[in-house]
Amino acid sequence: MEISHIEHLGIAVKSIEAALPYYENVLGLKCYNIEEVADQKVKTAFFKVGQTKIELLEPTSEDSTIAKFIEKRGEGIHHIAFSVNGVQVALDEVAAKGVQLIDKAPRKGAEGLNIAFLHPKSTCSVLTELCEQPAK
Amino acid sequence: MEISHIEHLGIAVKSIEAALPYYENVLGLKCYNIEEVADQKVKTAFFKVGQTKIELLEPTSEDSTIAKFIEKRGEGIHHIAFSVNGVQVALDEVAAKGVQLIDKAPRKGAEGLNIAFLHPKSTCSVLTELCEQPAK
Repeated sequence: MEISHIEHLGIAVKSIEAALPYYENVLGLKCYNIEEVADQKVKTAFFKVGQTKIELLEPTSEDSTIAKFIEKRGEGIHHIAFSVNGVQVALDEVAAKGVQLIDKAPRKGAEGLNIAFLHPKSTCSVLTELCEQPAK
Repeated sequence: MEISHIEHLGIAVKSIEAALPYYENVLGLKCYNIEEVADQKVKTAFFKVGQTKIELLEPTSEDSTIAKFIEKRGEGIHHIAFSVNGVQVALDEVAAKGVQLIDKAPRKGAEGLNIAFLHPKSTCSVLTELCEQPAK
């Protein structure tokens, strides 16, 4: 698989509203988009830092995986997302190498990206997402 | 403070040797440097992904902060490091805004960078490092 860059970092927060002053006023980043991803039961807020986005993830339901993450581990970095050229090809390639997949085929994520997650059991405990811009 | 990009992500692992096959053979990244940082009681391994480095952190002593992190939370993403122009100026600026600092002045980190950590209490629970290339 060929990774070009880190597309984004997902950071779990209890409240985007409460986290915004830190990201905007302390770090000096600008939130350019707030979007709800109903499928994943989260509200997301995006900031651009060089090539990479920071994606804050606030649970919109108690049974959201982000709510469970926060309950178990507290707020903090939730996942890393690598930009690849061809998510399906990359999934097939890593599955053939024995990597356990959460998604066997890409699905739609925030900002319209095609995304798929690898299982942390196979990724040294780092929840890992592969993503790409959809073909236009 | 002006952040140009994410300089690196620190990822705590029990063993760099055990993690290398995943990073090199599955993700296809190349480890270009392995270095011991005696001061922090860690061995580090570096990979470049676009603008950002992945820095694996293996504890070299049981009383290393990385050993304690792994004991408490397991392996995983440990910190995020932002590249800034002037660590001391940035520290003074965020301290004036009420951010709690771990380091009041920059110190030497891996790869000769000037680094300083902000306290996760003030950074929405994400251990955050500011860093810069030293003046030549």
